[in-house]
Amino acid sequence: MNWTRSYAILGTGAVGGYYGGLLRKAGADVRFLVRSDFAHVRVHGLKIDSPGGGFTLPRVSAFSRPSDMPPSDVAIVAWKTTENGFLASTLPLVLKPGGIVLVLQNGLDPERESAEAMPGAHVLGGLCFLCSRKAGPGWIQHQDYGAVTLAAYSPGPDPQGETPEMRAVAADLRAAGVEVGMQEDWRMARWRKLAWNIPFNGLCALLGADTAQLLGQEAMRRQVEAIIDEVAAGAGACGTALPPALRDRMMRDTDAMAPYEPSMKLDRDAGRPMELDAIYGRPLQAMASAGFRAPLIEALHAQLEFSEKLTGFPQR
Amino acid sequence: MNWTRSYAILGTGAVGGYYGGLLRKAGADVRFLVRSDFAHVRVHGLKIDSPGGGFTLPRVSAFSRPSDMPPSDVAIVAWKTTENGFLASTLPLVLKPGGIVLVLQNGLDPERESAEAMPGAHVLGGLCFLCSRKAGPGWIQHQDYGAVTLAAYSPGPDPQGETPEMRAVAADLRAAGVEVGMQEDWRMARWRKLAWNIPFNGLCALLGADTAQLLGQEAMRRQVEAIIDEVAAGAGACGTALPPALRDRMMRDTDAMAPYEPSMKLDRDAGRPMELDAIYGRPLQAMASAGFRAPLIEALHAQLEFSEKLTGFPQR
Repeated sequence: MNWTRSYAILGTGAVGGYYGGLLRKAGADVRFLVRSDFAHVRVHGLKIDSPGGGFTLPRVSAFSRPSDMPPSDVAIVAWKTTENGFLASTLPLVLKPGGIVLVLQNGLDPERESAEAMPGAHVLGGLCFLCSRKAGPGWIQHQDYGAVTLAAYSPGPDPQGETPEMRAVAADLRAAGVEVGMQEDWRMARWRKLAWNIPFNGLCALLGADTAQLLGQEAMRRQVEAIIDEVAAGAGACGTALPPALRDRMMRDTDAMAPYEPSMKLDRDAGRPMELDAIYGRPLQAMASAGFRAPLIEALHAQLEFSEKLTGFPQR
Repeated sequence: MNWTRSYAILGTGAVGGYYGGLLRKAGADVRFLVRSDFAHVRVHGLKIDSPGGGFTLPRVSAFSRPSDMPPSDVAIVAWKTTENGFLASTLPLVLKPGGIVLVLQNGLDPERESAEAMPGAHVLGGLCFLCSRKAGPGWIQHQDYGAVTLAAYSPGPDPQGETPEMRAVAADLRAAGVEVGMQEDWRMARWRKLAWNIPFNGLCALLGADTAQLLGQEAMRRQVEAIIDEVAAGAGACGTALPPALRDRMMRDTDAMAPYEPSMKLDRDAGRPMELDAIYGRPLQAMASAGFRAPLIEALHAQLEFSEKLTGFPQR
């Protein structure tokens, strides 16, 4: 592979560490922005465990401050949406003008802050179907899956189709061994992912359970299905008609997965803030603007917000 | 007071210990069935703390086995509904034939098992508006309120009106200092209480919160109100039209209460089984039989059941 694009990874955790690590291993020029683990990563690099074969990158280009990073052709936004307030002061430093931003974040439109932070950039949404977690400093445990679906972001209602920037990033990710899908309709891609995240992230976080435990009880399965149905109905009210078979496929796929603790559950357990606005607040706002009420999602959102406010964020 | 009726108290805890203690203090012949605390109560009696003035009963008539108890004129069923499987083997031993059963339990129709266990008995429902908890062996902490609403039970649809047995028990309780209300329609009494128990018991148990914490967050207040509305609509579908002003009055009354942890929350924290069937399962069944769907109550029930099954009952 003849690498023509350099990459800046914002957030070297379960997502950014994994995809950035794969790009680096394949030979790309990758600059990692590392916060809490900087002292470790600067000396020891990154370690990625994977059932398909792990690897170590003993030396990576690690930075603790955006202002130290050379501008890259592509910036991958891989930190939690709760950190998006830092985008406006970060993206212009780490990305070349007119560059590409790939937003590997959860929620309805996490691309919005990236687009606002970097006018003129080509912003892509990336939907990760990835089970991974950070196991320690500079240490990522990849558990299952890893495909990314790309979709070009636009604040307007019309799909952007398949853009040259999508094809460029897809080529790089594929060269790094990542399975890449392309979705012409960014909203469709986002709502499909939300149809999984909204039931599973919140219920696992609230109930302290993994996906297999949730799906192991019949009444809870029906709750999950009812929430997926509500997401689908809400997406429809917002103008995105999800495929009717999506719910059953999602249930089957999640049944087939190894027991998984979604990121929101790990955040909750660790006392970190949960991505409540991205995964619940914004979709509910969009539904409300379309005149759609989602009582089950509202209830779950209220419970999660309550639970977070009640116990606070001990680690912040 | 010239006491003509003897009392058997089944379950000497936060409810039975409190009302039985008041009756005993006022001079009634009260026989307490005591299980876990028997060794303590036999020697030390009962201690009741109360903001209005506590008292101690150094010697009470305590029994560890129903078969040791002389048959009484009135049996007060004050253990948790989760113990109702013991009624069939207990009531016929502790109650005179044709006696009165006063069921001080939560849920839609906890009287059913009492009526089935003791054909020919006069079964009364008693709705306690009581904040109390067991603080230790034979030690009840009364925190607030204490009124009881009586209603004659009947498995059929028609209200029984005000029966002689209601008046008799009301006179005894009033002589013991209890505020007593009479409700001609047993179903109305039960649904009114459920309109409080269904939101507050479950949410407090699930979220590890007290009533004041729940009501201190705006989004959670709206959830509580939405659940009360669902109970009211479901009761209406079942033929009991709750007063339209009930919801707002309940919110105001609960705002005015000292922060309170409902029994289900205490049970959850202590790893005891929660009264899920009485407070959720049976009302949901009744609503379903009436063709009414209650998605918020179903969701809460499923979460509570899940949570209980996931962690088990460490103390059982």
